[in-house]
Amino acid sequence: MASNYKVADYLLDRLAQVGIRHLFGVPGDFTLHFLDHVISHPDIEWMGCANELNAAYAADGYARVMPAAALLTTVGVGELSAINGIAGSYAEYLPVIHIVGTPALRAQKAGELLHHSFGDGDFSHFSRMAKEVSCAQTSLTAENAVTEIDRLLVAALYQRRPVYLQLPSDVAQADVITHPEALALSQPILSPSSLQAFIAAAREKLQSAHRVALLADFLADRFGAQQSLNNWLAAVNLPHSTLLMGKGLLDETHPLFLGTYAGAVSDIKVKECIENADVLVMVGVWFVDTITAGFSQHIIQDNCIDIQPEQVRIGRKVFSQIPMVTAVEALHKLCQSLQNEWQQPVIIPPSITPLSTGIMSHDWLNQQVFWSHIQSFLRPGDIVVTDQGTSCFGAASLKLPSGCTFIAQSLWGSIGFSLPAAYGAQVAQPQRRVILLVGDGAAQLTIQELGSMLRDGLTPIIFLLNNQGYTVERAIHGPQQRYNDIAEWDWTLLPLALGKQSFTRRVTQVDQLQQVLADLENCQQLAFIEVVLPQMDAPELLINIAKSLQARNAAV
Amino acid sequence: MASNYKVADYLLDRLAQVGIRHLFGVPGDFTLHFLDHVISHPDIEWMGCANELNAAYAADGYARVMPAAALLTTVGVGELSAINGIAGSYAEYLPVIHIVGTPALRAQKAGELLHHSFGDGDFSHFSRMAKEVSCAQTSLTAENAVTEIDRLLVAALYQRRPVYLQLPSDVAQADVITHPEALALSQPILSPSSLQAFIAAAREKLQSAHRVALLADFLADRFGAQQSLNNWLAAVNLPHSTLLMGKGLLDETHPLFLGTYAGAVSDIKVKECIENADVLVMVGVWFVDTITAGFSQHIIQDNCIDIQPEQVRIGRKVFSQIPMVTAVEALHKLCQSLQNEWQQPVIIPPSITPLSTGIMSHDWLNQQVFWSHIQSFLRPGDIVVTDQGTSCFGAASLKLPSGCTFIAQSLWGSIGFSLPAAYGAQVAQPQRRVILLVGDGAAQLTIQELGSMLRDGLTPIIFLLNNQGYTVERAIHGPQQRYNDIAEWDWTLLPLALGKQSFTRRVTQVDQLQQVLADLENCQQLAFIEVVLPQMDAPELLINIAKSLQARNAAV
Repeated sequence: MASNYKVADYLLDRLAQVGIRHLFGVPGDFTLHFLDHVISHPDIEWMGCANELNAAYAADGYARVMPAAALLTTVGVGELSAINGIAGSYAEYLPVIHIVGTPALRAQKAGELLHHSFGDGDFSHFSRMAKEVSCAQTSLTAENAVTEIDRLLVAALYQRRPVYLQLPSDVAQADVITHPEALALSQPILSPSSLQAFIAAAREKLQSAHRVALLADFLADRFGAQQSLNNWLAAVNLPHSTLLMGKGLLDETHPLFLGTYAGAVSDIKVKECIENADVLVMVGVWFVDTITAGFSQHIIQDNCIDIQPEQVRIGRKVFSQIPMVTAVEALHKLCQSLQNEWQQPVIIPPSITPLSTGIMSHDWLNQQVFWSHIQSFLRPGDIVVTDQGTSCFGAASLKLPSGCTFIAQSLWGSIGFSLPAAYGAQVAQPQRRVILLVGDGAAQLTIQELGSMLRDGLTPIIFLLNNQGYTVERAIHGPQQRYNDIAEWDWTLLPLALGKQSFTRRVTQVDQLQQVLADLENCQQLAFIEVVLPQMDAPELLINIAKSLQARNAAV
Repeated sequence: MASNYKVADYLLDRLAQVGIRHLFGVPGDFTLHFLDHVISHPDIEWMGCANELNAAYAADGYARVMPAAALLTTVGVGELSAINGIAGSYAEYLPVIHIVGTPALRAQKAGELLHHSFGDGDFSHFSRMAKEVSCAQTSLTAENAVTEIDRLLVAALYQRRPVYLQLPSDVAQADVITHPEALALSQPILSPSSLQAFIAAAREKLQSAHRVALLADFLADRFGAQQSLNNWLAAVNLPHSTLLMGKGLLDETHPLFLGTYAGAVSDIKVKECIENADVLVMVGVWFVDTITAGFSQHIIQDNCIDIQPEQVRIGRKVFSQIPMVTAVEALHKLCQSLQNEWQQPVIIPPSITPLSTGIMSHDWLNQQVFWSHIQSFLRPGDIVVTDQGTSCFGAASLKLPSGCTFIAQSLWGSIGFSLPAAYGAQVAQPQRRVILLVGDGAAQLTIQELGSMLRDGLTPIIFLLNNQGYTVERAIHGPQQRYNDIAEWDWTLLPLALGKQSFTRRVTQVDQLQQVLADLENCQQLAFIEVVLPQMDAPELLINIAKSLQARNAAV
């Protein structure tokens, strides 16, 4: 039966149904027919990127502020160029639907000597590679398309990780009879008896406690616990903190928000409150080396209630089959009846860094001055995107206004990620202000995506922190070594070269920065601000963390 | 025993010993200590690239004009960013030694929650991925380093493919007792009886022939048969041709060089000579879809002597254990005694495209006019680097002067490859003129490596063919579709933004191009020439090949 409804249409309808509105990627000859369907789809917009790795980063950024993201690449060359971006989404739990246009099925079956292959007739090399960085994989056929598309979307949304769909060029155009109905999403399994046992154990633990604190991290965001967490913290007096990866998850204007926890190099009040609690509730926490100064956290397991996506651990006892949100809500209820027994936490005054005290307006900029200005520049609802290096560690000390989103890729830690990720986030949320903070070393890796932002008329505010090379690596090892230098670019020419209509400035002195920040309040264009900073000046947090990493790499 | 000679030193000495003089890559915290040894090594120079994929492409370009190349990346993020470049080297048989800096062995063994990992304590994901794109893999330890480094280098040089070495940060600094002696390279196995049988069968085939022709391709270059082939063709009257991937392998100024063979879309004289030969000798030939207009070659197997790296096939009979060079030299000898029996081939007049006949100097440029000017611009010894798309298919019709090298990546076909590959080739051969021909669509993927060329004071001549998007894709499908558009850049600002001291021009008319080409004769700087060409104008070969690919993708 010939119809006008094709596998391509079914796939796109499913993507739209789960809330995806844009498809990032780079065209290739095996994807061109599928792209015709994309262009004519009413709800999905094609976002052509300058290269595939950037497209994958953009999809990742998009998935951080949307239900999921989609990426289209061509077989071999395209998918492998993107695979580091996908790996980042896999590491950091972002659902990215990776569609790979492959040769027609009959050409694959015949083992033809096709371009974008190794010429060995084996088309399974790439799916084996994808298996390491995705939670489900498939090669679509006309027969399995409906079932497999549904299976993969469900897997991505449930596991919050990338999935990998090979779409042969002929299969994209094969007929499909069924239009998609509502997608039956998987729900996490809840064991009522396990939940009951958990509540009983938690009550016992909490009712004898005097000092209770909460530490949350990125998995709480990924597994949908943000709202429940903030409800809990609004109702119950609990001092609380996040790690850097979870920054922005909790409302930082809350009087009991302590700041970012980073193990031994944390601000002293954060460290004391978290490490000295009788009971520390952790939600979605992973202690990664880079954000704990090399595992310097001093957390006693017996004092912890550790809530992970599908289980809770109290001390050494595991309660399985309890979804994260259920556990958070149960604890919220429990705490309301118990909190009067707890020691009233010391109310910590808001820790806004003093702005420009004692700084002369003609002084050269440095990290400390720069970040204090950014602090007052932030507005509720901003999306703050930072790269690995000075920018994320500097931003760690910012106190975010309400409703801000903070994006950093601290576990996977791929430099250059932030610029395309900011593009993806801005595409997803055009009404919000996206502020990108990226170092010169990182920006060189992925700079061409600035062209896509300009082409699309997007208006993110980009602060290019120019400290002449890889300052994060200098802090770890080889401060004067040539391998930490990069090519010297004239950054302010770049927005002109890659597009038109931008607000571009270079600032070296305090008053210049102040003027630019004032001008930005009414700026309707993409803003690109080169901020010149001393080469060896780094945020204190970064210096402390770098020392610990250096020690760990050097030890034989 | 403590010494000053470390695993890092041994590895670098071995690289130097096989003729490697440069190490491409991007630093990462797990490679910084190794990099200290690189910087202080007397024979190896560090070539920091703007990103890892570009570094891998640069290494590939280097390996095309040197005995081998080396690439350094950091675990996870770095190696996966580079993996598409490595895959290209794997597909097209280039020995690239990929060194990956990994966490200290004890951290790996402890399954620590490290950055650049998936946080699952499993550090074998990446070596499994690398296995698909390399011919040997290892994870170095203090104990196995000497043996394993030697094993991998031998494998890379013998198989002409990438190898993958994980170098833990602590192992790099472990002591090694042995300094490297001469490396015992593997030699291909020769079976004297097989060779004898092959020669007998070849004599029988050739002595009854009237029309004999030779077709060579890229594997003849990779397995070291170029010199033997050209000796043979200098001594024996054989009409001959290459496929596009093997362009430059044979001396194109030879009166019996026919031009490039491309199946049904070949120039008629090439097609006749190759397809109508009684005996067609093929050396290192693979018939890839993109360079044969979708397998349109009409070659009768029974008429062929097909020489591959380790075996020969005459008709349907296989003679194994005969190295390519041995087979070529045996046929050379045989042909000298037989050639008088053959029909004297028609001497084909040199096919230089007439320059500018009937073209007015104020006319707009088009593909045909552009390529005819490039033809007369070429000089003996040039390295001509082209990208997939209009540039490689346009360059296919060039008649190369003696001693030129031609670089195109037609099997793997990763767009954007050529710019970093040209960087690698120029680093390898600073005394030769590197001419890069790259389209705007391709150049956007990897443009930041222009900054490395400028930083290093290299002087390649870059022709940026600006035809406003992916013309190669437009030719295949969707000529007016938005997905074949790209962001509009101001190309001539880019060399200024990414460095200093370049000769930058934009040409739209014939006389402008002529003036620029004249100026280039005395140019001592990097030259960046934006050549504006009509959007839908494409070399005839590309149009014909695109039609065949379109038909193959569309057929359901």
